[in-house]
Amino acid sequence: MIQIPRGTQDILPKDSYKWQYIEDTLKNVCEKYNYQEIRTPIFESTDLFVRAVGDTTDIVNKEMYTFKDKGDRSMTLRPEGTAPVVRSYIENKMYGDPNQPIKVFYNQPMFRYERQQKGRYRQFVQFGVEAIGVEDPLIDVEILSMLMAFYESFGLKDLELHINSIGDFDSRKEYQKALQEHFRPKIDEFCDDCQSRIDTNPMRILDCKTDKNHPLMSTAPKITDYLNDESIEYYEKVKSQLDKIGIKYVEDPSLVRGLDYYTHTAFELMSTADGFGSITTLAGGGRYNGLVEMLDGPAETGIGFALSIERLLLAIEAESIEIENPHTLDLYVVTMGEESRDYASVLLSQLRQKGITADMDYKARGMRAQMRDADRKNAAYTIVIGDNELEEGKVNVKNMSTGEEVAYSFENLEEAIQ
Amino acid sequence: MIQIPRGTQDILPKDSYKWQYIEDTLKNVCEKYNYQEIRTPIFESTDLFVRAVGDTTDIVNKEMYTFKDKGDRSMTLRPEGTAPVVRSYIENKMYGDPNQPIKVFYNQPMFRYERQQKGRYRQFVQFGVEAIGVEDPLIDVEILSMLMAFYESFGLKDLELHINSIGDFDSRKEYQKALQEHFRPKIDEFCDDCQSRIDTNPMRILDCKTDKNHPLMSTAPKITDYLNDESIEYYEKVKSQLDKIGIKYVEDPSLVRGLDYYTHTAFELMSTADGFGSITTLAGGGRYNGLVEMLDGPAETGIGFALSIERLLLAIEAESIEIENPHTLDLYVVTMGEESRDYASVLLSQLRQKGITADMDYKARGMRAQMRDADRKNAAYTIVIGDNELEEGKVNVKNMSTGEEVAYSFENLEEAIQ
Repeated sequence: MIQIPRGTQDILPKDSYKWQYIEDTLKNVCEKYNYQEIRTPIFESTDLFVRAVGDTTDIVNKEMYTFKDKGDRSMTLRPEGTAPVVRSYIENKMYGDPNQPIKVFYNQPMFRYERQQKGRYRQFVQFGVEAIGVEDPLIDVEILSMLMAFYESFGLKDLELHINSIGDFDSRKEYQKALQEHFRPKIDEFCDDCQSRIDTNPMRILDCKTDKNHPLMSTAPKITDYLNDESIEYYEKVKSQLDKIGIKYVEDPSLVRGLDYYTHTAFELMSTADGFGSITTLAGGGRYNGLVEMLDGPAETGIGFALSIERLLLAIEAESIEIENPHTLDLYVVTMGEESRDYASVLLSQLRQKGITADMDYKARGMRAQMRDADRKNAAYTIVIGDNELEEGKVNVKNMSTGEEVAYSFENLEEAIQ
Repeated sequence: MIQIPRGTQDILPKDSYKWQYIEDTLKNVCEKYNYQEIRTPIFESTDLFVRAVGDTTDIVNKEMYTFKDKGDRSMTLRPEGTAPVVRSYIENKMYGDPNQPIKVFYNQPMFRYERQQKGRYRQFVQFGVEAIGVEDPLIDVEILSMLMAFYESFGLKDLELHINSIGDFDSRKEYQKALQEHFRPKIDEFCDDCQSRIDTNPMRILDCKTDKNHPLMSTAPKITDYLNDESIEYYEKVKSQLDKIGIKYVEDPSLVRGLDYYTHTAFELMSTADGFGSITTLAGGGRYNGLVEMLDGPAETGIGFALSIERLLLAIEAESIEIENPHTLDLYVVTMGEESRDYASVLLSQLRQKGITADMDYKARGMRAQMRDADRKNAAYTIVIGDNELEEGKVNVKNMSTGEEVAYSFENLEEAIQ
């Protein structure tokens, strides 16, 4: 028997309403914030991710689904959403649009070949948001406000927003020097990756999973001590606006993003719910002032974040929030014999066209089995079409919750149900 | 500059509302027919498509995006939607569900490495429907009724439904013999593919693009002359029910599907709109009684169809049907200076939380430029926050279509707009 690829999942009919509800809710919040949807292809030139995500990262080195197409071009299944959006922004010259910033959201599958664990899939769905074309603490605040609105719209409460500033390019440069001075004397005690990172990108040492317990890690200098005046001012404005809006946050100076184009605001949202499991990060994002230029676009800046729908679902479960199945069946038509079934088939087609959700039995089951079927499908009303009903053109409409029955002609069935 | 992969497209913010409208409309029709969504992974084991679609087809031989994953397993980006749904049906033992038939729809990207032409992409979106677990002309009729409801829900009129019956397995067997007798004497005038097809699968000769003008093609026997009594009865019931519902169709005995598991009802929907272009097929489908078993499932039968969203969009354009952009901006907040902007940022966050779609200027533009921006964004209302307004806690709400202005306190803004 052929099985589903490891690390992927089917969203089955019995569960898909949860995904629909989550996605519709998130899209509705985007609407309020005036963000529009963008969709990019499932695969992109491998080069896009090598350049944007960086060839020193695990994503690019170990986790990408890369293949040659029939034209011998190297393609990669999208491991993240920002690079494709920025590629599209540049290619479609959105920087020339009079509406600025460009505010978009996406809801798309991503692919990373990772070890399987709870809440982590090789194909997973990211809902992401990007605002490109403005550098202003107020747009950072808008993005953070939207992030919180996303989660609050589901009634989630056990949330913790971590924020930090990585400062501008000058601040980063000073900080990187300080990190090199800090780690250099004992760098031979670190892993091979870190030994090369100290020259290419010392901030990424702080993210190292292998060396995370090395004593030099906890004593490493903090980026916040190296921010210049402009960067401090930017960060202070973000924080004071968050205070005014009433968004609680934790300042987390260890929250750095190692890639060269990240600047200023960085953030992660954690779930603090009991039983959520070991991966507590629900969403993450930050400002990327160097990315558009790095991909050969103009000197425009951006900020965004992405969340995983799978983890959002886990958070909803962890906080025991019930998502109601919105599907209802207005009418179940019980049939008796061939003539009855033929008539029901035509009737259904008419009723559905009039906006009524209706169904019948296609297994030619007996009447009692059909009534059970109607119950199982949670039908609001049932009718039974027998010889008498066909002859008289009238039928009893039974309200399944009250048991009440009222006679209607077939022509008036629609009214009866609506 | 890195470009989008050939044959794929971005759905840009300025167009995405059309896709949302189409998908929402189709899902709404599915709801009425009591079909639920299923989502399967973007890639599957290559073997699934080799077995289900068949290794004599162009799809499998020439058009698949196949690659090895890091575990050295051969994976293929889904070229069609039915095989994954049937794989999921078997793997999740849906045949044991008391609700039968299993009625599902999907809305997913598909991938075929084909030559580019108008309305044909290498990544395209198929909206498909499957009903598995019942063999009954009435469910075929339900599927055809839903197909027509899909297109009629957009107001499309230039449609032509082609139907045919391929009969049951016995009828097919007789027909295949007849085709072999017909083509065998001159098979050396046919292409290599056809020369091997005459033994393996003679029906596929009828689909051959290379030999389509060979004189033996037009004189080939028709499947409808080889249907046994049961198959004729099945087909007649489908047609008489379509007549009763008022669905028009063209009987098309040349409409065959070459794969071994297809039986009985086969159909295609064409657009007859002027200027639709050379590819006129909008959707296609049929009954597949052998597929579930062929993929090691139980002896259950199914029927379904798929349509391309890209072609549906072309048909909508060809019939000059306008899809309205539903996005509206309730309120644009015009700001004057830093204090005003900071206040606006907080106000926006509050209003959006209350369900109002609101925006402001993030480019620190002058007041006139902001008013133009509000116009361009089609704002229903604007307010201007100046020093006076901040001091008095009051603001004039301007109705942008009437020009009327009414004063409200900041606390009551929400009411004013709703």
